[in-house]
Amino acid sequence: VAEGTSGPGWLKHFPLLADLRRGSARDLAQDGLAGTVTAILLIPQALAYALLAGLPPEVGLYASVLPVIVYALLGSSRVLAVGPVAVAAVMVSAALIPYAGNDPARYLSGALILSALSGALLLAMAALKLGWLTHFISHPVLSGFTTGAALYIVATQLSGLTGIPVPREAGTEGILAALFTGHGRLNLQTLSFGLGAMLLLFAARAPLTRLLTRLGLQRETAGSIGRTAPLLLVITSTVLSASFDAHGRWGVAVVGAIPHGLPALSLHFLNEDGWLRLLAPAAMIAIIGYVESISVAKALAFRRQEKVDPDRELLALGSTNVIAAIAGAMPVAGGFARSMVNYEAGARTQLAAVVTALWVALAALLFTGLLAALPKAVLAAIIVVAVWQLVDFASLRHSWRYDRGDGAAQAATIAGVLAHGVETGLMIGAGLSLLLFLYRTSRPHIAVVGQVGDSEHFRNVLRHEVRTWPDLLLMRIDETLYFANAPRVESELQAHIVEARQPKDVVLVMSGVAYIDTSGLDVLEALATALHQNGSRLHLAEVKGPVMDRLAGTDLLTALGPQQVHLSAHRAIAAIGALRK
Amino acid sequence: VAEGTSGPGWLKHFPLLADLRRGSARDLAQDGLAGTVTAILLIPQALAYALLAGLPPEVGLYASVLPVIVYALLGSSRVLAVGPVAVAAVMVSAALIPYAGNDPARYLSGALILSALSGALLLAMAALKLGWLTHFISHPVLSGFTTGAALYIVATQLSGLTGIPVPREAGTEGILAALFTGHGRLNLQTLSFGLGAMLLLFAARAPLTRLLTRLGLQRETAGSIGRTAPLLLVITSTVLSASFDAHGRWGVAVVGAIPHGLPALSLHFLNEDGWLRLLAPAAMIAIIGYVESISVAKALAFRRQEKVDPDRELLALGSTNVIAAIAGAMPVAGGFARSMVNYEAGARTQLAAVVTALWVALAALLFTGLLAALPKAVLAAIIVVAVWQLVDFASLRHSWRYDRGDGAAQAATIAGVLAHGVETGLMIGAGLSLLLFLYRTSRPHIAVVGQVGDSEHFRNVLRHEVRTWPDLLLMRIDETLYFANAPRVESELQAHIVEARQPKDVVLVMSGVAYIDTSGLDVLEALATALHQNGSRLHLAEVKGPVMDRLAGTDLLTALGPQQVHLSAHRAIAAIGALRK
Repeated sequence: VAEGTSGPGWLKHFPLLADLRRGSARDLAQDGLAGTVTAILLIPQALAYALLAGLPPEVGLYASVLPVIVYALLGSSRVLAVGPVAVAAVMVSAALIPYAGNDPARYLSGALILSALSGALLLAMAALKLGWLTHFISHPVLSGFTTGAALYIVATQLSGLTGIPVPREAGTEGILAALFTGHGRLNLQTLSFGLGAMLLLFAARAPLTRLLTRLGLQRETAGSIGRTAPLLLVITSTVLSASFDAHGRWGVAVVGAIPHGLPALSLHFLNEDGWLRLLAPAAMIAIIGYVESISVAKALAFRRQEKVDPDRELLALGSTNVIAAIAGAMPVAGGFARSMVNYEAGARTQLAAVVTALWVALAALLFTGLLAALPKAVLAAIIVVAVWQLVDFASLRHSWRYDRGDGAAQAATIAGVLAHGVETGLMIGAGLSLLLFLYRTSRPHIAVVGQVGDSEHFRNVLRHEVRTWPDLLLMRIDETLYFANAPRVESELQAHIVEARQPKDVVLVMSGVAYIDTSGLDVLEALATALHQNGSRLHLAEVKGPVMDRLAGTDLLTALGPQQVHLSAHRAIAAIGALRK
Repeated sequence: VAEGTSGPGWLKHFPLLADLRRGSARDLAQDGLAGTVTAILLIPQALAYALLAGLPPEVGLYASVLPVIVYALLGSSRVLAVGPVAVAAVMVSAALIPYAGNDPARYLSGALILSALSGALLLAMAALKLGWLTHFISHPVLSGFTTGAALYIVATQLSGLTGIPVPREAGTEGILAALFTGHGRLNLQTLSFGLGAMLLLFAARAPLTRLLTRLGLQRETAGSIGRTAPLLLVITSTVLSASFDAHGRWGVAVVGAIPHGLPALSLHFLNEDGWLRLLAPAAMIAIIGYVESISVAKALAFRRQEKVDPDRELLALGSTNVIAAIAGAMPVAGGFARSMVNYEAGARTQLAAVVTALWVALAALLFTGLLAALPKAVLAAIIVVAVWQLVDFASLRHSWRYDRGDGAAQAATIAGVLAHGVETGLMIGAGLSLLLFLYRTSRPHIAVVGQVGDSEHFRNVLRHEVRTWPDLLLMRIDETLYFANAPRVESELQAHIVEARQPKDVVLVMSGVAYIDTSGLDVLEALATALHQNGSRLHLAEVKGPVMDRLAGTDLLTALGPQQVHLSAHRAIAAIGALRK
């Protein structure tokens, strides 16, 4: 699938249409298969994540039809599988419980407002080129957030798995306390459905695949069979629950009547109030949804030697969420596991997503009525098994080993999410990692350097055997020179110069300086003046192109003149030798 | 005055004592002279800045005795002249007007709390090594803040210069409006004192020096005569005002009775409430005072080939302000103009400051009673002429030309101070410059590089005539690799690799990378893996020492092995040639 082949110019804005124009029949068949496999995974997930968000199960299905088709048309990723995702779902519930209280109508319209607002925010970020704001969620913080949210989600599902009632607004501690005090109200039949479903789902993964491959099946086929487990489970457990009348006889909570078909498009949520109150959670849902989607999309695109356009994705995901609101659905994003399944099942274009959406629509039209007896405990089991994969303490260990600061930020995010909820946890992590970065850049590394052997390369005198010259000091500044480190750089340069007993020539090797702001320029100008007054010379070497562009015309460069600005440290040495003659 | 000469070890913590131990008689005489010159400048300033802070004039004198001696003992700067400063004074008044209303006792105790709190905060910063926090005030923001505060101070003094009453809590606009509507209440005699004093003070600067040098005096002597102008002005105007009974006859506002002597040390301010309310303004007074002091101290120390220790200065200025509170005085800091005068008058050690303090104490003991008839308009004129030097629009032009972002932050700070007061203005500026920095580092420069001529130096292929090789891509990353730019770096590297049609070897030149955080490491690891899967190799070159230390033992370095990590880009080329054979 090479870029830039024939077709009218506007086609390149719609990768799906361009792909279809040149698609071979084989591609279409592959996409159809991949879309079907993804649908089998998506349908139970959609029901379960709606439940996780505190919404009626059909809202998850609505989120998996029209939004999926809109993303397929607009998105720049060929394989991203959009739909409800667990982390966004729990953020929806965290935002709506205080917002709507016990009013289901207000709760539902709140969910639509969240979809519309998060979509609008993504569109605004696309228009204002503010996609870089989402980069302030670091990998460790995102991983910590996901782990924390997954653990919290598992906690929220314990009530559904056991039948023990837990107040909806409870945090992690509250849930555990309610389970403990309410253990007498444990519903054994509910527990059986829940534990049975969990066992089956876990078994359907690695153990089943191993068994089937040992029985002679191909690894891929074995994996595909395992992936049908959630759907088979939904069907079997519904049949079991209906035939035993589990709800009537034992009080097992079931999904209940799900309306047939898809709702008419509607803008009635625009009349609701509370937009301002939901702005902050909508912003976080938008950012987390976007960050998750773009990272999956990028990873998969690079494997296929394709590009994903981050700005384009803002536009696509923004539109998708606005459409979700109009289609009566919860916020959507690209799911990691789902996209991997889609990719591995052979999806080559977003046609696969269209096929997925059509299957979900079919399910909504024909089969939802049959699911009334589906035990909620089974959906809870699907949620727990799905999010359990998101719990990643190995990543915490990895961060901690590589970088204590990042590890601490990650641990604080996990703890923050569990102790203070998803929003606060995310803000704690993002704030900490920002502070850490500022702290680091405010104390840059400055090395006195010398020539390595007879190469033209200059390195730290403390780390390498290097050659130095009398009355000549070479220093390398290893950081962008900006206000927060300018005072420290100034002190350190001055200290090195005083220690070297005011050498005749001082060369600053600027290979590590990507930018000099006004404060940094002031430091360099003050240094040049002070050295000049004491009869010494300041030289600059290896100044990067963009930095030199900016320095051109400043008093600093005028004062130094071309004789004291050098392409490389090596040429500086030669030039200083000539100057001294 | 060389470092590290004889004496017991603890002496090095008290530069003044060490200096005294080895001081010659000539030094002592020079310091005595410089201290006297500085005192002549300081006494009128101390009275005026106390007035500016809304405090009785003697509070300025108290701030110039004990605190000055404590700084002389503890400070690491030899020539910094500590005492009341204009900008801190106006910050005190901004903080105390809403705090104390019309209760003078509460106003005074509030000032002591501000001294104590700002001192305690500086001490805490010294203890916790948090001096770097003050670096977040960039030069443009500091300059904008000073200009804005100076303009605001000039506005506040217009009432004193004209006799037109203005409500104390008025902002810049309110002051101008009150002057306009109250112009009928202009007091001509007050205006005469004010304008006369201003004319005399401005004339005593450059014009007088020029005249005296033309008459044959040495430039230095001429300058010294000019510097006595404020003191002569205070004496003459007091005599004039007293002999005409300006207060009784024309209603010219005068200073009134100033109590003799210095107050007993006291901790009674500890009993006051309101510490928490004054915490934020105290923090800003501490930061601004420290930043001003350390920058003057550093500039002057480097001229004398000495070092100033920023942490030590935190300790010294912190102790000085705590002592100020106990001595019944307003917050103090190192003054720029005053320190320059002290330095130029030949101060060589902090003995000069001790002499200054003794002169001020003498004035407080003997002469304050004589100043009752001193018109406040004269002090207002001293303030206006002193702060007028701080107004610096040339710096705004300089910043704007060099860096639009810094210029905008500076302009916003000036506007913020004038429109919303000193504290808000400072926060606007600091916030903007931080956002700007984050925005910049989030979009790093990445250059495809090649070899310059037959040197070992590699530069941007778009800017220099360089040599490149088939199936080999060299890229230089020009920024610390951290979470906020990791997604962008990943996209750009991937795009370059896709454009170069998946070259066999990809070399990342890391000379511009001072730090790699966990997110950055993830990007590099993902890139190495993806390249490996496609049959290509990732190489690193010119990795800085501290970065390499951290990378050692990571999966990335294990995967690459020593064959794919090179000292320089030049050696990488040679090694790749060998690998391909």
